[in-house]
Amino acid sequence: MNNRRETATLSASIADNLAKQIEEGVLPAGSRLPSIREYAEAAGCSKNTVISAFDILTANGLIEPRRGSGFFVVRRVIAAEEAEEATTLNRAMDIVWLMREQLQTKPDVLNLGEGFPPVEWLEETRLDHYHQRVVRTGVASLFRYGSRFGYLPLRQSLQQKLAGYDIDAGPSQIVLTHGANQAMDMVLRYFVQPGDTVLVDDPGYYTLFGKLKLSGANIVGVQREIDGPNIRQLEEHLVTYRPKLFFTQSVGHNPTAADTSAAKAHRILQLAERYDLTIVEDDALADLRPRALTRIATLDQLRRTIYIGSFAKSVSAALRVGFIACHAALASDLADVKMLTHVSSSEYCERTLDAIISDGHFLRHTNHLQEKLRRATDTAIKALTRLDAHIYKPCEQTLYLWASLPGWTDSMKLAEALIERGVILAPGAVFSPDADQVSAYCRFNVAYLADKRFAAALHACASHGAR
Amino acid sequence: MNNRRETATLSASIADNLAKQIEEGVLPAGSRLPSIREYAEAAGCSKNTVISAFDILTANGLIEPRRGSGFFVVRRVIAAEEAEEATTLNRAMDIVWLMREQLQTKPDVLNLGEGFPPVEWLEETRLDHYHQRVVRTGVASLFRYGSRFGYLPLRQSLQQKLAGYDIDAGPSQIVLTHGANQAMDMVLRYFVQPGDTVLVDDPGYYTLFGKLKLSGANIVGVQREIDGPNIRQLEEHLVTYRPKLFFTQSVGHNPTAADTSAAKAHRILQLAERYDLTIVEDDALADLRPRALTRIATLDQLRRTIYIGSFAKSVSAALRVGFIACHAALASDLADVKMLTHVSSSEYCERTLDAIISDGHFLRHTNHLQEKLRRATDTAIKALTRLDAHIYKPCEQTLYLWASLPGWTDSMKLAEALIERGVILAPGAVFSPDADQVSAYCRFNVAYLADKRFAAALHACASHGAR
Repeated sequence: MNNRRETATLSASIADNLAKQIEEGVLPAGSRLPSIREYAEAAGCSKNTVISAFDILTANGLIEPRRGSGFFVVRRVIAAEEAEEATTLNRAMDIVWLMREQLQTKPDVLNLGEGFPPVEWLEETRLDHYHQRVVRTGVASLFRYGSRFGYLPLRQSLQQKLAGYDIDAGPSQIVLTHGANQAMDMVLRYFVQPGDTVLVDDPGYYTLFGKLKLSGANIVGVQREIDGPNIRQLEEHLVTYRPKLFFTQSVGHNPTAADTSAAKAHRILQLAERYDLTIVEDDALADLRPRALTRIATLDQLRRTIYIGSFAKSVSAALRVGFIACHAALASDLADVKMLTHVSSSEYCERTLDAIISDGHFLRHTNHLQEKLRRATDTAIKALTRLDAHIYKPCEQTLYLWASLPGWTDSMKLAEALIERGVILAPGAVFSPDADQVSAYCRFNVAYLADKRFAAALHACASHGAR
Repeated sequence: MNNRRETATLSASIADNLAKQIEEGVLPAGSRLPSIREYAEAAGCSKNTVISAFDILTANGLIEPRRGSGFFVVRRVIAAEEAEEATTLNRAMDIVWLMREQLQTKPDVLNLGEGFPPVEWLEETRLDHYHQRVVRTGVASLFRYGSRFGYLPLRQSLQQKLAGYDIDAGPSQIVLTHGANQAMDMVLRYFVQPGDTVLVDDPGYYTLFGKLKLSGANIVGVQREIDGPNIRQLEEHLVTYRPKLFFTQSVGHNPTAADTSAAKAHRILQLAERYDLTIVEDDALADLRPRALTRIATLDQLRRTIYIGSFAKSVSAALRVGFIACHAALASDLADVKMLTHVSSSEYCERTLDAIISDGHFLRHTNHLQEKLRRATDTAIKALTRLDAHIYKPCEQTLYLWASLPGWTDSMKLAEALIERGVILAPGAVFSPDADQVSAYCRFNVAYLADKRFAAALHACASHGAR
């Protein structure tokens, strides 16, 4: 470990330690922190190390510098202290904490719950390599908002991409968004009024649950089975709640890794027709799974399906470009919602993504990515098998595996025990719209499962009788 | 005029013509357009010209290609055909049409209502020039969402920028957003429930009115005077409605170009204190006005003021980077709202903006921009004076002038008469939260006022007795 790395690690650990003291009230809101010099002397480290630690805490909004008088603990608005309906944000506070946690990078911790492929796997995309190409598209004279639908050449590239899934969508059916998350948010803004019921996969994508809570929606889960949503339960919910929307992920479902079968996709559409339901199909993992899998949008050809696509897992989440494909009249309305709220998405980012995906190199890149996933999945399944884990759906190529470990009936307890030993899990309960649900399963990122720290931490817990 | 330019102009004029026929129902929804070959023969132009025209219409969602069978007029959802409360979008349909209009580029039309400095004035920013610098900040390994507050070095640059206005805000008080428009939207999402009253400047920023309507807010205008909001009316509204928020623009107010005086800023804050009001101060034109003008946030130091900044008018609207500065606890909450709805803003764009504004060249650029504005303002005032116009606030340096023309008591009628002659105005009524209000004023972009087509079109209207 070189010196700079060592300093970074030490700063992060000091920051973590102080953050814990702030959260537990040892350092109360408004109190002054020791000076950088005092702290460095007490901790026996350099002032630069302390400065970096304070920078981390400042960036995370925990402390703030006041001119000439040092650093102070920020007075935070705590949800519980406010009236229940004081802000719409309170509805989603539990997910807020979870998401904040995920956005923080913690060095030297094994994060088995991580939602992305390793950075090294994406690096061959070489964002820097495409800059010259983006410049040549005329970025120097790019000063206006752009079309409310988004950059036309990229929509034309996406038309080709969707044609690869046998989904027929012209550019007027495609709306570019600030990532798949804005896409979901726009759909909610358009369809959902406070109190409306919305159906979601259970387990499913917790970031979506956060958005639904912020909208004041009544969230009802449809149980996922190994071949897709539980159709009987879906119909019951349709009869009971008459919801307008069902958010579901057909391909490489997050977190279970199970795909929806063609037969179930067909049944879902039959029910959608009968109960006037719109399906919102999130295809965030499209580039990481074999191309030939069934999508509801392929059967339906976007009559009742709103298809949402992302490049966060295959190109870069930092570009913030996603898209919606749906029928043209709805696309026009959603483009209006986008225009009213944000005027437009970033043509600058859209041109960059277009330069990347319209290049033959992108196909090679996703092929390599899928090869890496196949090898990692094989290794990950062997690692889980050695631990006598039960794997819900052992695929050949997946970013996630959904598995339970022998003796642990509540994976939240397992996660709590392992975090003490530097291993982060994504326990099943966080993926349920019902926060009190107990799950034996965890979502594991295949890239990190063979790391020996996991087996060692698990063994240490077992011998301490932590379960 | 070269050939390519000629083709582009012809395509745009064919597209405009067809768009008009679609809007007027001459080409009804669902009908098939003539084939590209037929159309080219009938119009006596090349097929490429027709293809470009159809591309424009497709991009604007008016027509759509169907595989193997040509182009069809899109079936559009018309607000009036739906039940009043069918979608939240209906509430804002009038503004939707206005914004769509503004996002379309129409060649060979004089747009005096344009909201931006001319592209040539911004070109020296040279976005392309900064690409190498952005690459060196490590964009190649930029694959994750980033902090919920946004890219830290940019927040540190903004801290410096705000210090230039004597506003003291640390990085934990600054949240980066997807443009100033998302900033306003986040504030609305956080504070406003359907039915809540929100105060706005009258006249004011109509895009904001669209967002407020989408949120279901009750919009109440506070009359603008030459030195800022009408204080007596503000207090009356505070007593009557007890609103939580007042959106106002103190510097270079859009559309009147009048700044809020220091005395009024002080009075507004006194009232805010008494009636527990939060001020949302939109400073979108900061880089185009002299730096020393009074901001409410400078007096208040962000205790009751939420400051919103933008680079759309001085760098590029296509980057989509804006920011919020407020007290740290609220900044943390607003960063959570952003995280729930969009996960994060684009670090890719944020690094690009940071490379631009932290360079000494940016200061030179804004100085040049202000020089150009001074010269254009002088020319524009002379042009309006020759027309016997009344200028509400003749500034030395402004992007907009707010003026009325002799004999025209309803500027909407003037705008309608001039659009027939290829001159677009921004009539006063569109800037009022009360859509039925009649205004004699228009907002003029100083860069275009000396164009002879304006005086000629005005003269032609007068001699036809159009007023």
